[in-house]
Amino acid sequence: MSVKIPRGTQDILPGTVEKWQYVEQIAKEVCRNYQYKEIRTPIFEHTELFQRSVGDTTDIVQKEMYTFKDRGDRSLTLRPEGTAAVVRSFVENKMFGDPNQPTKLFYNGPMFRYERPQSGRYRQFVQFGIEAIGSEDPAIDAEVLALVMDIYEAAGLKQIKLVVNSLGDVESRKAHREALVQHFQPRIGEFCGDCQSRLEKNPLRILDCKKDRDHELMATAPSILDYLNDYSRTYFEKVQKYLTALNIDFVVDPTLVRGLDYYNHTAFEVMSEAEGFGAITTLCGGGRYNGLVSQLGGPDVPGIGFAFSIERLIAAIEAEGIDWPFESSLDCYLVSLGEEAKDYTVKLLYDLRRAGISAERDYQDRKMKAQFKAADRLHARFVAILGEDELQVNKINVKDMQTGEQQEVALDQLVDALKTMMEAK
Amino acid sequence: MSVKIPRGTQDILPGTVEKWQYVEQIAKEVCRNYQYKEIRTPIFEHTELFQRSVGDTTDIVQKEMYTFKDRGDRSLTLRPEGTAAVVRSFVENKMFGDPNQPTKLFYNGPMFRYERPQSGRYRQFVQFGIEAIGSEDPAIDAEVLALVMDIYEAAGLKQIKLVVNSLGDVESRKAHREALVQHFQPRIGEFCGDCQSRLEKNPLRILDCKKDRDHELMATAPSILDYLNDYSRTYFEKVQKYLTALNIDFVVDPTLVRGLDYYNHTAFEVMSEAEGFGAITTLCGGGRYNGLVSQLGGPDVPGIGFAFSIERLIAAIEAEGIDWPFESSLDCYLVSLGEEAKDYTVKLLYDLRRAGISAERDYQDRKMKAQFKAADRLHARFVAILGEDELQVNKINVKDMQTGEQQEVALDQLVDALKTMMEAK
Repeated sequence: MSVKIPRGTQDILPGTVEKWQYVEQIAKEVCRNYQYKEIRTPIFEHTELFQRSVGDTTDIVQKEMYTFKDRGDRSLTLRPEGTAAVVRSFVENKMFGDPNQPTKLFYNGPMFRYERPQSGRYRQFVQFGIEAIGSEDPAIDAEVLALVMDIYEAAGLKQIKLVVNSLGDVESRKAHREALVQHFQPRIGEFCGDCQSRLEKNPLRILDCKKDRDHELMATAPSILDYLNDYSRTYFEKVQKYLTALNIDFVVDPTLVRGLDYYNHTAFEVMSEAEGFGAITTLCGGGRYNGLVSQLGGPDVPGIGFAFSIERLIAAIEAEGIDWPFESSLDCYLVSLGEEAKDYTVKLLYDLRRAGISAERDYQDRKMKAQFKAADRLHARFVAILGEDELQVNKINVKDMQTGEQQEVALDQLVDALKTMMEAK
Repeated sequence: MSVKIPRGTQDILPGTVEKWQYVEQIAKEVCRNYQYKEIRTPIFEHTELFQRSVGDTTDIVQKEMYTFKDRGDRSLTLRPEGTAAVVRSFVENKMFGDPNQPTKLFYNGPMFRYERPQSGRYRQFVQFGIEAIGSEDPAIDAEVLALVMDIYEAAGLKQIKLVVNSLGDVESRKAHREALVQHFQPRIGEFCGDCQSRLEKNPLRILDCKKDRDHELMATAPSILDYLNDYSRTYFEKVQKYLTALNIDFVVDPTLVRGLDYYNHTAFEVMSEAEGFGAITTLCGGGRYNGLVSQLGGPDVPGIGFAFSIERLIAAIEAEGIDWPFESSLDCYLVSLGEEAKDYTVKLLYDLRRAGISAERDYQDRKMKAQFKAADRLHARFVAILGEDELQVNKINVKDMQTGEQQEVALDQLVDALKTMMEAK
């Protein structure tokens, strides 16, 4: 009997993995242009880290984490998101001591949430994210937004929308919170149980409720934008001014609330508007998290970041019907006739590969015709044919599979000949 | 108070992560030449998979796995090695049905073993590995060995040694096993408790024992090479013949036994001989595992592969004193004078980055001199200086940081000018 893959996870196989490689490569190149450097943190962290950062009352911490004890009785959790660990690392490695701030980092790797598996949603998924820690300049907010839009543009997406909001600073949030309580309190009995407990703990979360979204009090709820104090309002205006200067389209949506507790000031999402993309249209979410660094034991420095799922970016590319720009990765297939010639291809193959020419041959003792078929299936750019007669006179035939042209070259010239032909293409 | 990184794990930070990126890039390029394609399997698997493949009596399964129950009461294990999952995926996705065989795969990702942390040994480490499943041609064994040696050569390693052995097929192993029992049985009381239980279960493992390595019976133990049947001996000779044809140096060591249960026929290790590399010199291990695919529920097809730790490859490069070939990743640093000019750099920075020129500016309100210092620290290739006066006349000064040459260009020509200067370098 065979062992199956764990529920809610997937294998990414050749033929599909190229999509992952492609979008990750794009994201990394854009990060290079913007000077964000890679950081790799462990797959698991102490559970406490997520309780303290993501927030004890969030769905993630309450219902979705893979938490377990290791053999040393430590409570560990497979990371459900990337920001907490990056901030933990920023603090632990004293990156705030670097003379150049903000510290600009990106990460790319698997995250884990125990959710009900459904189309396009996995328990292990790949997030690409960035963090800029150590600056409260609105130009950094604009940079972060420009960066994610650049990645999507480089991937070819056109049907996307950038939605921004400000959640304000502590003072503004407090004023808004009080207004929300006043607004919902008198009729809270008409809301779901979750919302009733949210009223006390975190009334902002009510605006996020999927069950009560159509209640009439939702549409008339006080907007955070009416409660921003001077600093927060000016900050948000500057972010918008920069976005306009960069010709980046955006809409302001005062109901945009991110599902994690640590956000303030600028919050944003990028949505796909492609037809058939599905009910959940969010491609990317992020925002400012001033206060999180000190909450995790570091100095009081501000931060901002975003994360997006590689799976959803791939789905968006496909929903827009964009062609994947993959080329064949096989430069030369070696066809041989007879035992002696076949044996010789071991060395020939090796020489080609060491010269940087990707090469393949048959390992299934197939006849010449079947070997040609294999070369076809693998989309070989060239086929080199070695028979016993050619081997006797140290020659080999090379066929260009696009033009059908064929030429004979000396066996010890094959590498050079192929290189010349490849460059000419 | 701050939360620390879990014991035995590490953050890989900018300044170090470039080493990982570099060696992974080399390995992927060599895999492209050899036509091995990437596969990504989940971080965790059903625990049973490792019990059945790695082997119930191995240290890995008995002492070192991160095993836990998920919220659905499944026993999951963070993968301790890569082969089992790749073979599981090969079977589950019916890759044996592809007309081109063997199926050639590589993987690169974190593995997890709960060991005592020590210098250079982590509980989470990165393995790069390949598998060729579906062929029992000795030319494939030679290809696999050539591939790993090519990766190490491309990384610049010179002080390495390839050690090969044959563990034979089932029949040969049985004969050898009986000879081992006969050899050790009479004096087994002089051996450690582990070895005493190994005598019954797996006498081959006695040869691997660290406690009893100096016992006189060790040196005189029967060699597997004397018990190979005709098929196994011929097979091993062919592998060696191909290696010789490819000019790949190797030594045969009949005491080489791999620590996993599933190996047979060709087994190999690559060792570092660099001074100061440390007591454990193994860089890479691998071998043939005919039988594993059917054991995991697939058809009876053979396989071979290897895995190496990225951490140890990096350590070997450094032990040999090889220079890392990193270049500065910052093309242009924008220095500005005055509020208006600084504001203008937001747009300028954006234009450069979108043109593929990596660019940075100051976010700490620093004076001009300090901005130049920052550009220096970041190893900027060019510095562009924008003052209020220049901004008035739409000009900007560009300084080549290597030559010290400076020139004035029109503000809207900066992208083109920098591109020209970068190409001229």
